[in-house]
Amino acid sequence: MRHSGIAPRATLAQPARAMPHEFTLSHRVEFSETDMAGIVHFANFYRMMENAEHAFFRSLGFSIHAHDGSATVGWPRVNAACEFFKPLRFEEVVDIQLLVAEVRARSIRYAFRFWKSEDGERTEIARGSVTTVCTTVNRMTGKLGAVEIPAAIRAAIAPAPAEMLAALSPK
Amino acid sequence: MRHSGIAPRATLAQPARAMPHEFTLSHRVEFSETDMAGIVHFANFYRMMENAEHAFFRSLGFSIHAHDGSATVGWPRVNAACEFFKPLRFEEVVDIQLLVAEVRARSIRYAFRFWKSEDGERTEIARGSVTTVCTTVNRMTGKLGAVEIPAAIRAAIAPAPAEMLAALSPK
Amino acid sequence: MRHSGIAPRATLAQPARAMPHEFTLSHRVEFSETDMAGIVHFANFYRMMENAEHAFFRSLGFSIHAHDGSATVGWPRVNAACEFFKPLRFEEVVDIQLLVAEVRARSIRYAFRFWKSEDGERTEIARGSVTTVCTTVNRMTGKLGAVEIPAAIRAAIAPAPAEMLAALSPK
Amino acid sequence: MRHSGIAPRATLAQPARAMPHEFTLSHRVEFSETDMAGIVHFANFYRMMENAEHAFFRSLGFSIHAHDGSATVGWPRVNAACEFFKPLRFEEVVDIQLLVAEVRARSIRYAFRFWKSEDGERTEIARGSVTTVCTTVNRMTGKLGAVEIPAAIRAAIAPAPAEMLAALSPK
Repeated sequence: MRHSGIAPRATLAQPARAMPHEFTLSHRVEFSETDMAGIVHFANFYRMMENAEHAFFRSLGFSIHAHDGSATVGWPRVNAACEFFKPLRFEEVVDIQLLVAEVRARSIRYAFRFWKSEDGERTEIARGSVTTVCTTVNRMTGKLGAVEIPAAIRAAIAPAPAEMLAALSPK
Repeated sequence: MRHSGIAPRATLAQPARAMPHEFTLSHRVEFSETDMAGIVHFANFYRMMENAEHAFFRSLGFSIHAHDGSATVGWPRVNAACEFFKPLRFEEVVDIQLLVAEVRARSIRYAFRFWKSEDGERTEIARGSVTTVCTTVNRMTGKLGAVEIPAAIRAAIAPAPAEMLAALSPK
Repeated sequence: MRHSGIAPRATLAQPARAMPHEFTLSHRVEFSETDMAGIVHFANFYRMMENAEHAFFRSLGFSIHAHDGSATVGWPRVNAACEFFKPLRFEEVVDIQLLVAEVRARSIRYAFRFWKSEDGERTEIARGSVTTVCTTVNRMTGKLGAVEIPAAIRAAIAPAPAEMLAALSPK
Repeated sequence: MRHSGIAPRATLAQPARAMPHEFTLSHRVEFSETDMAGIVHFANFYRMMENAEHAFFRSLGFSIHAHDGSATVGWPRVNAACEFFKPLRFEEVVDIQLLVAEVRARSIRYAFRFWKSEDGERTEIARGSVTTVCTTVNRMTGKLGAVEIPAAIRAAIAPAPAEMLAALSPK
């Protein structure tokens, strides 16, 4: 079949310019993300935070899951939390704003704010945080172990300015 | 917090031009869509077909889930099938091509082809079909019942040309 | 087709005896819960906490989602957090232990501990908390509003003894 | 914390007796499996078929995902289809009945019937089929390749009697 280049498409967004401490990923709510209460099931907010983190890595030229000889370097979570202020519904567009909160030798802590437009106003609907640890997985044994963040990644990432993070104290 | 308009963002794609029988949705594979075999878990292909169907409806100016008085009009599936030819992996971009295969009084049958770029070539990695029935859900009782497709939707959708569908005979 | 009563089956567990402050739900990890790192994707821990909460409600004779005239009474989350200590893998059995941490007029806070057996020892692999608010959803408008916990539920639930909760201070 | 053996629990079902061509897995619908139409989202039926297949393998003493030197033996799907007759709702119990439909040198085809009790009657709510191929995954390269079914598995599995499969002709 000829797949015509002029057929209608919803293509992926253009790659965003990189910044070492902030990134925003937009997402339109899928039907399968809703539950019988008519709103986005809360477990999807943790997936959304992870997707924003991975898009942030891509914007810096890295992948969250990279091969290094017989090991795979990954970033499992050691904790993740989220507060929910307002419901999110099918087909609404949510902006997932990532801020780098802290960078340590082997781990990064991110803060997240979820925004949607409602009645012409930008409303914060949820707020979260995730701490990830740089880890190698031995592909033969499946064993995990924490390692230092590679220098190239360490050089590309920095905490957000204090005033951006101050806004995130408990609501 | 000031959310600067110049911060890096991955925004949503621009709305695509409408066509009554074809639509393509692009999707970048998420980490949570993979399984321990290192590839996209097959159940996600059914979600992807649904997402393409809903994006097709939006391109025509409709929502797949609309309120009509005390009832909600929806499109539950009566069957869905998918054949898998090649694995799909984390961060790969997949194009989900929807073709309208048949329009009946109360139901629509769609055909789907999944494509990815591999070694500079466009490769078909999966092929599926879904039949949905126009249905009202009584919001008080939860009862479902098939109804005729609303005239406005019926007027906007048409089967794809026979030669496009012929390409979809079993591989 | 005759569905013989003697064919092999994995039936559901028998209903557990009720207790007002504690419940344990066992779960065998499904393939679709794993990710390409070979371990359970972290978002599933939030689903598991919710499933334990719902099984706790059923053990007391309630459903987490009940109809009351034209409204539905539900329990959306206002926050949920989880710390991850050890990976969980395909086909392993995890015990999700729920403790009632606090009961207020409109909300309940739960603490959760995840356990698995490893080398003959019971190991805590994760620890979480969830706060839910008793809420009505108007089935015609979809609007949510917090309400007081119904008396029957309030009478059946009580916080766990202080010494059980003390064990949950940050690890 | 002492985890008392007398606290209320929903433990896992006892292992079922093995049979070479049939298995039934019971499942209580989770909240996260529902969607805003108030019923189980259709993509979960494919997960349920997979879970029944894996429980069938366990009943025979095998795992669907086994290590063999530097390769992992798995069973990716080459196709999966499902027809939906009746909706399935939160907290309902569904019986997923697996029948072995065909065993070939490298692949197995399964048929599935989904049952629930409604008004005291056993009702078939969905029917599906899945073909899986015995495959090795090289853990270093991630490459997949079809292989012959191991003799021990081949000896333990057999197609269901013709009259059981005849009942599965299109409804």
